[in-house]
Amino acid sequence: MFDVTFTFENEDRQPVTVSCAPGANLLQVAQHANVAIDAPCSGNGACGKCKVRLIEGELNCWPSSHITDEEKAEGWILSCGSKVASDVTVMVPDIAAAYQSRMQTADLSSGKEIAIFEKLLSDIKGAGVELVNTFASDHVEIDPPTLDDTLPDNERLVNAIKKTFGVSKVTMPFSATRDLARNLRENDFRVRIVGEHRGPDFFVYGVTSYDDHEPLCGLAIDIGTTTVSAVLVNLKGGDLLAKASSGNGQIRYGADVINRIIEQGKTGGVKRLKDAVVCETIEPLITKLCETANVSPSKILKVCVASNTTMNHLLLGVDANPVRMEPYIPTFFHADDIFAMEIGLHVNQNARLILCPNIGSYVGGDITAGTLATLLWNKEELSLFVDLGTNGEIVFGNNEFMMSCACSAGPAFEGGDISCGMRATDGAIQAVTIDKDTMEPSYDVVGGDSFKPIGLCGSGIIDLISELYRCGIVNSKGKYVREGDRVKFDEYGMGRYIIVDQTKSETGREIALTEVDIESFIRAKGAIYSGIDTLLSSLDMDASCVEHFYVAGGIGSGINIKNAINIGMFPDIELDKYEYIGNSSLAGAYTCVLSRNAEKKVNELARNMTYLELSTYPGYMDNFIAACFLPHTDLSRFPNSVQEL
Amino acid sequence: MFDVTFTFENEDRQPVTVSCAPGANLLQVAQHANVAIDAPCSGNGACGKCKVRLIEGELNCWPSSHITDEEKAEGWILSCGSKVASDVTVMVPDIAAAYQSRMQTADLSSGKEIAIFEKLLSDIKGAGVELVNTFASDHVEIDPPTLDDTLPDNERLVNAIKKTFGVSKVTMPFSATRDLARNLRENDFRVRIVGEHRGPDFFVYGVTSYDDHEPLCGLAIDIGTTTVSAVLVNLKGGDLLAKASSGNGQIRYGADVINRIIEQGKTGGVKRLKDAVVCETIEPLITKLCETANVSPSKILKVCVASNTTMNHLLLGVDANPVRMEPYIPTFFHADDIFAMEIGLHVNQNARLILCPNIGSYVGGDITAGTLATLLWNKEELSLFVDLGTNGEIVFGNNEFMMSCACSAGPAFEGGDISCGMRATDGAIQAVTIDKDTMEPSYDVVGGDSFKPIGLCGSGIIDLISELYRCGIVNSKGKYVREGDRVKFDEYGMGRYIIVDQTKSETGREIALTEVDIESFIRAKGAIYSGIDTLLSSLDMDASCVEHFYVAGGIGSGINIKNAINIGMFPDIELDKYEYIGNSSLAGAYTCVLSRNAEKKVNELARNMTYLELSTYPGYMDNFIAACFLPHTDLSRFPNSVQEL
Repeated sequence: MFDVTFTFENEDRQPVTVSCAPGANLLQVAQHANVAIDAPCSGNGACGKCKVRLIEGELNCWPSSHITDEEKAEGWILSCGSKVASDVTVMVPDIAAAYQSRMQTADLSSGKEIAIFEKLLSDIKGAGVELVNTFASDHVEIDPPTLDDTLPDNERLVNAIKKTFGVSKVTMPFSATRDLARNLRENDFRVRIVGEHRGPDFFVYGVTSYDDHEPLCGLAIDIGTTTVSAVLVNLKGGDLLAKASSGNGQIRYGADVINRIIEQGKTGGVKRLKDAVVCETIEPLITKLCETANVSPSKILKVCVASNTTMNHLLLGVDANPVRMEPYIPTFFHADDIFAMEIGLHVNQNARLILCPNIGSYVGGDITAGTLATLLWNKEELSLFVDLGTNGEIVFGNNEFMMSCACSAGPAFEGGDISCGMRATDGAIQAVTIDKDTMEPSYDVVGGDSFKPIGLCGSGIIDLISELYRCGIVNSKGKYVREGDRVKFDEYGMGRYIIVDQTKSETGREIALTEVDIESFIRAKGAIYSGIDTLLSSLDMDASCVEHFYVAGGIGSGINIKNAINIGMFPDIELDKYEYIGNSSLAGAYTCVLSRNAEKKVNELARNMTYLELSTYPGYMDNFIAACFLPHTDLSRFPNSVQEL
Repeated sequence: MFDVTFTFENEDRQPVTVSCAPGANLLQVAQHANVAIDAPCSGNGACGKCKVRLIEGELNCWPSSHITDEEKAEGWILSCGSKVASDVTVMVPDIAAAYQSRMQTADLSSGKEIAIFEKLLSDIKGAGVELVNTFASDHVEIDPPTLDDTLPDNERLVNAIKKTFGVSKVTMPFSATRDLARNLRENDFRVRIVGEHRGPDFFVYGVTSYDDHEPLCGLAIDIGTTTVSAVLVNLKGGDLLAKASSGNGQIRYGADVINRIIEQGKTGGVKRLKDAVVCETIEPLITKLCETANVSPSKILKVCVASNTTMNHLLLGVDANPVRMEPYIPTFFHADDIFAMEIGLHVNQNARLILCPNIGSYVGGDITAGTLATLLWNKEELSLFVDLGTNGEIVFGNNEFMMSCACSAGPAFEGGDISCGMRATDGAIQAVTIDKDTMEPSYDVVGGDSFKPIGLCGSGIIDLISELYRCGIVNSKGKYVREGDRVKFDEYGMGRYIIVDQTKSETGREIALTEVDIESFIRAKGAIYSGIDTLLSSLDMDASCVEHFYVAGGIGSGINIKNAINIGMFPDIELDKYEYIGNSSLAGAYTCVLSRNAEKKVNELARNMTYLELSTYPGYMDNFIAACFLPHTDLSRFPNSVQEL
């Protein structure tokens, strides 16, 4: 059956060779061989990100507008549209995995991240959620046994712990017992105890050497469909010790949750998807974080995860199929009593895995965690919270009620479904202005000027579309209507704006925004706007009622709110009501790591939040269609939109 | 380094080939290659059980009295005394692993085993230990979800469980959640719930199909140094569902605990010893028991283990080295909060592993469990309890006090250290009489007349020595003093009694008891007798105070008490005070499986039991030396001994 040999070369690593059947799809062969090739459109030919170059052999390829004639002559093809016809060698350029991208350790020295988390801690204390650290460590010295004092090691240690920590009961789990004999004897019966006060009980997480001074840590993880971010936290005081992020390794199985669920429904799929996020994504992040902070993984005593309902099911290896099948019932909203090691995380053996609770199949723990971080539940004024992840979710309410909904915005805000889109990592264009007369762009790149641009992240795309519209380069339907050096049209008449030509980009290929890209993005922003509109309408309200508008998401290091209003993504209300709060899911998970009170609070929020199913709500589709223009079919809603045609 | 090839052939399985260094010890090569060769003397040349036959190649062998000239001519050698000189092929006969022996599923239909356990249950209830079964199972039917009833699966199930089982709180561990979606949907939302009442809480062990009617089971295991026995028990009512036993797979690392501890102290040793008992011994027993009883291992909800201190440390993979080093401090007496799966047992994921508690490095959970089963703690009269395992342990006391000690009797009672000794499995001679005039023997074989004899088990050895002494064939020093067809002397003048000649044995080799064997056995029985004597003397008592004398151990299907008195192993008191109670450790573990009250009771016994260290007790060595005769140097202690010289 497997009689064709397939070799994947790449720019600087060892080639990978596998066998497959003739007729196999190249993208799928790559996925099974664990060769990273981006396919945020899930391999339907739409995004053009899976471009690779044929070196040798024969492939049957569909034609694609993403491949220029020049590229075709050089052997470039789309993996998703190619079937294997003979023994084949292809070259996979680094850029083909740019969307999944490399791991990134964030710079904590800038103080910006630290400030966000510090403010959150102080705000949340102000809202009455006391942060109580139950974890503790101390040195204990034990009388060595003698022939006349023959208590076994564990009882001897328990007695010393009772004395040192002033507790009446001590629980020594098996893991702490196993190496006790060696631990005590190698350290001359002087050791450090790491544990947790649990009511009157003291639970022992570990016995380490007397001169071990590593801090006790917690780990907060935001598992997005596209990006996974994590912070390592000192449980005493909440200091950030390290921060890192990477693409979610599941991306090769599809860009959105629906494609992931379909994939996990195949034989062995649940394990495959779980391994992709646990072994290939989170475990390397943990290694990286621990190296950066110089602590052992066994010092991670608690793990909190904020993730959408599908992601947290796949994380646990729980079949997520019912999430996408009517009546859309997940296995759990709350999943308690799980140990991190049960899902394969190599942290302290007794570390608990806390999942921020879901409230429905499409409003998950990422949103309850984010809501916790906004503090909207503590304000009398009405607030709106929008999380621009791979999908968009919206929460509206105050200290008396909370209502939420989810919009099928797709991955455009994180650069998916956009031909030159990418995550907000080094080399991403994150802010753009255009000179109206010359149509020449200026832009900022993530990482600074030392990085040549690679593509556009969400905030850059918003800026670019807003500027193209403001300068009259595209019309309200997102079609190119001016001509010039920067605007080109292909043989089918499709226009594109070239923001970076091939000589100036990192990849040697131009960075441009096509009409197809703009159309994708308009659908995404239309989903968000109409979601907000419908949610407010369902309560007989409109945007003027909103006093605080929190924007979260991995869209870039910030978002130009004015531009987002210009394109009709957000309602046209006073700019000072808006606040960009960064990754609120991670921030919410961070507070839960630091406090059981925050855990209780997030569970309370989830219980009190109502869910509005947009897809069956009357009027939503009309609202959506009306919003799929720049800025909207009803221009009276956007008096401050700045088109100057 | 590894430039010699070693091939082990055998009677009917695939040969095993390994590489080793020239000069390697054959027995050690076999152990590392996992080829079973008995070495109850730990490879010091004493027992002669590691006999194998050289087929090809060259070995450097020590001379040994265990190899006759004929055998030498045929290529027989002792594995422990042979070093590899070239590429070698040896044949390992089945008999070379007879002591480790095959697994045995005991016949429960006889009613004998059942009666012992039934009586114990009734006795223990009579003693005030109520047997409360907290495990429960029932069918639940759940309303399928709809678009208007969108509770997640786990909450839906929890509500149904609360209703069905009449509980206010339900704990669903991760394991029960993981396959819930499939379980509910494949069974049309009608399932069977297996769980346990824990106070007001109900803990879910499993969700199975509606038509699953397997009983809820517990597993009691007696892990002896030589033999491991287990019973599978119906948690509802305590019926025995299956019983099985096998040799402890650790035997290839030494016959006694000291050699095992030395072995586990080597690199990787802890894991090697743990694997030998868990993976190679207990796991196959579990498979066998479940097959016999036709239940899934996931129905085993609780596991109780009775084992000596070294065995339970090695079982958990806990370094046992301090057990043999002054001041002889183990890691634990009690080890709580362990799950069976944590040590690698494939039973229900949430099944707890209960270890009967140790009271010292040399009086372990096997003895506390056994003491529970004797009920001596519930009687006013003074009782003595002797467990003849690989070592001998003694408990003396009543409902007011309990005192214990351990004797270094060695493995003789289970057939170790005896050239034709074996465990009490099929083919073992378990009872012997000798015609005083003709010196011809009559004997019973375990398994009945359909089995040709293979060797002698403990009870058979006691009978044989007693009869040899009664008939004047050996003197009080255990030396052969009569001549005849049955008694032979070798070139060094060492006598032996041939009970089965080579034509009638299963192995084609004679079964005989040598003077060396008798000497070994006399040391073992002397240790027991002097232990009893010393323990009683320490309380200013003697054997006449003993009202009940309980004898336990895997010595055979029974023990001829009169013969044991004749050889001076047990004190010369009224025969009707003696009771052979079989495997009391297993019986004690069995009651703990069935009841948390029994667990509490065995912990209470352990706390109340005092330990007397014999090795440093004044007078013990003198007592021991005096007891190393048949029956004793002080014949006045044995007025009823029946020697008729």
